[in-house]
Amino acid sequence: MNAGSAARAAPSSRQTVTIDLGDRSYPIHIGSGLIDDPGSFAAAPSSSLGVIVSNTTVAPLYAERLARTLRGRHRRVELIVLPDGEAHKDWQTLNQIFDGLLTLGADRKTVLYALGGGVVGDMTGYAAASYMRGVPFVQVPTTLLAQVDSSVGGKTGINHPLGKNMIGAFYQPAAVVADLDVLATLPPRELRAGLAEVIKYGPIADAGFLGWVEANVDALLARDAAALAHAVRRSCEIKAEVVGADEREAGLRAILNFGHTFGHAIEAGLGYGEWLHGEAVGCGMVLAAALSARLGLLPPADAGRIAALVQRAGLPVRPPAFGTARWLELMRLDKKAEAGEIRFVLLDAPGHAVMRPAPDALVGEVLDAHCA
Amino acid sequence: MNAGSAARAAPSSRQTVTIDLGDRSYPIHIGSGLIDDPGSFAAAPSSSLGVIVSNTTVAPLYAERLARTLRGRHRRVELIVLPDGEAHKDWQTLNQIFDGLLTLGADRKTVLYALGGGVVGDMTGYAAASYMRGVPFVQVPTTLLAQVDSSVGGKTGINHPLGKNMIGAFYQPAAVVADLDVLATLPPRELRAGLAEVIKYGPIADAGFLGWVEANVDALLARDAAALAHAVRRSCEIKAEVVGADEREAGLRAILNFGHTFGHAIEAGLGYGEWLHGEAVGCGMVLAAALSARLGLLPPADAGRIAALVQRAGLPVRPPAFGTARWLELMRLDKKAEAGEIRFVLLDAPGHAVMRPAPDALVGEVLDAHCA
Repeated sequence: MNAGSAARAAPSSRQTVTIDLGDRSYPIHIGSGLIDDPGSFAAAPSSSLGVIVSNTTVAPLYAERLARTLRGRHRRVELIVLPDGEAHKDWQTLNQIFDGLLTLGADRKTVLYALGGGVVGDMTGYAAASYMRGVPFVQVPTTLLAQVDSSVGGKTGINHPLGKNMIGAFYQPAAVVADLDVLATLPPRELRAGLAEVIKYGPIADAGFLGWVEANVDALLARDAAALAHAVRRSCEIKAEVVGADEREAGLRAILNFGHTFGHAIEAGLGYGEWLHGEAVGCGMVLAAALSARLGLLPPADAGRIAALVQRAGLPVRPPAFGTARWLELMRLDKKAEAGEIRFVLLDAPGHAVMRPAPDALVGEVLDAHCA
Repeated sequence: MNAGSAARAAPSSRQTVTIDLGDRSYPIHIGSGLIDDPGSFAAAPSSSLGVIVSNTTVAPLYAERLARTLRGRHRRVELIVLPDGEAHKDWQTLNQIFDGLLTLGADRKTVLYALGGGVVGDMTGYAAASYMRGVPFVQVPTTLLAQVDSSVGGKTGINHPLGKNMIGAFYQPAAVVADLDVLATLPPRELRAGLAEVIKYGPIADAGFLGWVEANVDALLARDAAALAHAVRRSCEIKAEVVGADEREAGLRAILNFGHTFGHAIEAGLGYGEWLHGEAVGCGMVLAAALSARLGLLPPADAGRIAALVQRAGLPVRPPAFGTARWLELMRLDKKAEAGEIRFVLLDAPGHAVMRPAPDALVGEVLDAHCA
C-alpha cells in the first residue's frame, strides 16, 4: 500500500456551507480528503459522461485521483487540459473546451468538473453555462483564492482585451468541493494571492474576522491547517450570505469587489498574468482604503491598518505608475461604472462597505501618494 | 412631407401576446407601424445608451427609423452592423458585437436591440446574455421566421463547426416587436422559409391551425396582410404556451424542434447557409412525419398531408443524399440526443407530438425513400 492509496483510504472530514438560492442552492464542502471521497460529489447528477477540465499544472497532480473518485457517478470520465494562467482566459481557450466536449460526444446530461484555480473555474463555468445552453458543473478549486472566492457564487467568464471578465454568465455550480489538502502543494506566491481575498471579507463585512486575520496571518502563511480551515470556512460563509441576498449584483454583492476596481485596472494595464489577480486586489484594497480616508469616510488609522495587513501578507502595496489619466481610463471600463462614472467600493468603517463615486482629482492624489 | 414621414405619422395598430415567465415575462407586440412607434418599446428600460445590432442587408432599410424611435429612451443610440447570413453565426462575428460594445463604452444598463432575422436575433441575444454577464435586450425581428419562432422564447446562441446552436444561453428579451410591414420587403425565398415554422405549429399542437394554414397557404405566399397577421399571432400564441410551461426544454418544449433533428443535419452537412434554416426544417418535417408513419404512430395519409403542405409552400421535400451513415452521425450531434441515442420529435396524430428514439434501420429506410 503506497502513500497515495493510504490517503485515499483515510476518511474525509468536512464542514459544509450552503449557498441559499432557492432551486439553485448548493453545498460548499470544505475539508480534508474530499477529492478522494465520492460523497463529496453527491450533489452532482449522475450521467454517462463526466468531463474534468483542468490545466497543465494541476492535472498531473490531481486529475487521475478525481477521475477515480468520479467513476461511480459516470460510466466514462474524460479530461480536457488547458494552458495555465490568466493570459489564457480568452475565447481561444474557451473554444478548446467546446471542441473537446463535442469531440467527446458530450450531451446535455454531461457534468463538467472544474479542477484548478480561478481561471479554470471561471472558464469551465462559462463553458458549462453555454454548452448546449447549459450543462451541470462542479467546482473543485485547488488554490486558496478559488476556495475562498472565485469558485463560490456563480460568476463565470473570460477576459476581453479591453476589460477583465467582460464576457460571461451568472451560472451556479451543483456543488463546490474545497479540499484543503491541496493547499499544501500551492506555490507560496499563489498562497499570498489567495490571502488577499481572505483579507477582503473583514473590512467589507466583519470587523471581528478582520481582527482574526490580523492575529493569524503568520499562521496562514505557515499553512497551519486549523487556521486555513477557519479562513476558508468564514470567507465562504460571508460570501454565501452576500450572494444569497443578491445573486446578480443588483446592489449589495458589489461590495465583494472591494479593491477590484483598482485591481482590474492593474491587471488590464500591465497585461493579464503579469500580476496575479490576488496581488492586484491586495494593492487595490490599499488604494480603496486610502481613497475612503481621503474622502473622509474612514479614519486614516483604519486605512493604515489595512495597508499594514496587506503588506504583512507579502502582497504588493505600491501600484504601477500608469499616470492618473491612464488609471482613470482603465477604471472606466469597470463593470460597476455607469454612463462613464466609476463607482468605487469604499469603507465607512472596518466591517462596512459603501458604493460611491469619487472626484477624479482625489483619485489622482491617492495614486500619486502611493506610486511615489 | 415625404412618404417616410407619412408612414411614421400613421398610428400603429397592434395585438399583444404575453410570454408568462414570472419576473421574466414580456410582451410580443404584433402589428403595423410598430418600428416607428415609441410605445412598442415601453417594456425596455431607459438608459443613456441603446445599441442597435443589425446586418448589412437590414440596417440600410430600417436602422435609422428605429434609431429615431428610440431617441426618446436613450440619450445616445448607436449601431453595430454584422455581415449577413447563417455562415457568420460564429465566434468571430459575436466578438464584433463585444468589440463594438466596449468601444462604444456600453455598460450594464445599455440596452441592445436585435434588428434582423434569426441569425441577428440569436447572436444579439447571446451577446446580451454574456456582455458584463447580462444586459437587457429587445428583439425586433424582420423576417417571418424570426417573428413566428426564433425571436420568441429566449433561445440564443451561435453555431460551432461541429453542430448548430451548440454554444448559447437561455436568455429572455424585455420585449419582442414584430412589425408586419417589414414583411413586404422580405425576399420570396425568406418568406417561404418562414412559412416552414408557421406550418410546424399545427402538426405539433393544433390540428385546427394546420387546417387553417392548408386553407390559407396561397394567401400567405401572396403576403395577404390579414393572413400574415393571423399566422404570426397564432404561431406566437402556441410558442408562448409551450415556452411558458417549459422555459429550459426539460420536456415539452422539445416538440418545437419538430423537423429540426433532420433539418440541423442538413444545415451542418451541407455547410451553414447553403439551405436556409426554414428550408431545412421544411424538409425535416416531411422526413419526421414519414418516420412517424413508418413507426406506425401516424396514419400514412397524415404524413402525406404534411409533405403536400410543405411542397405547396415552395419548400424542398427531397433531402440531400448524404448516405445513411453520415446522416446518423450528423443527427447524433443533436442537442436532444442522450448518450448517443437520437431522440426524434414525432407525431402520433395531427396536432400532437411525442419524443421517441427510432431504430437506425428504419431511419435509413425513410431517408432512402425520400432521397430517391
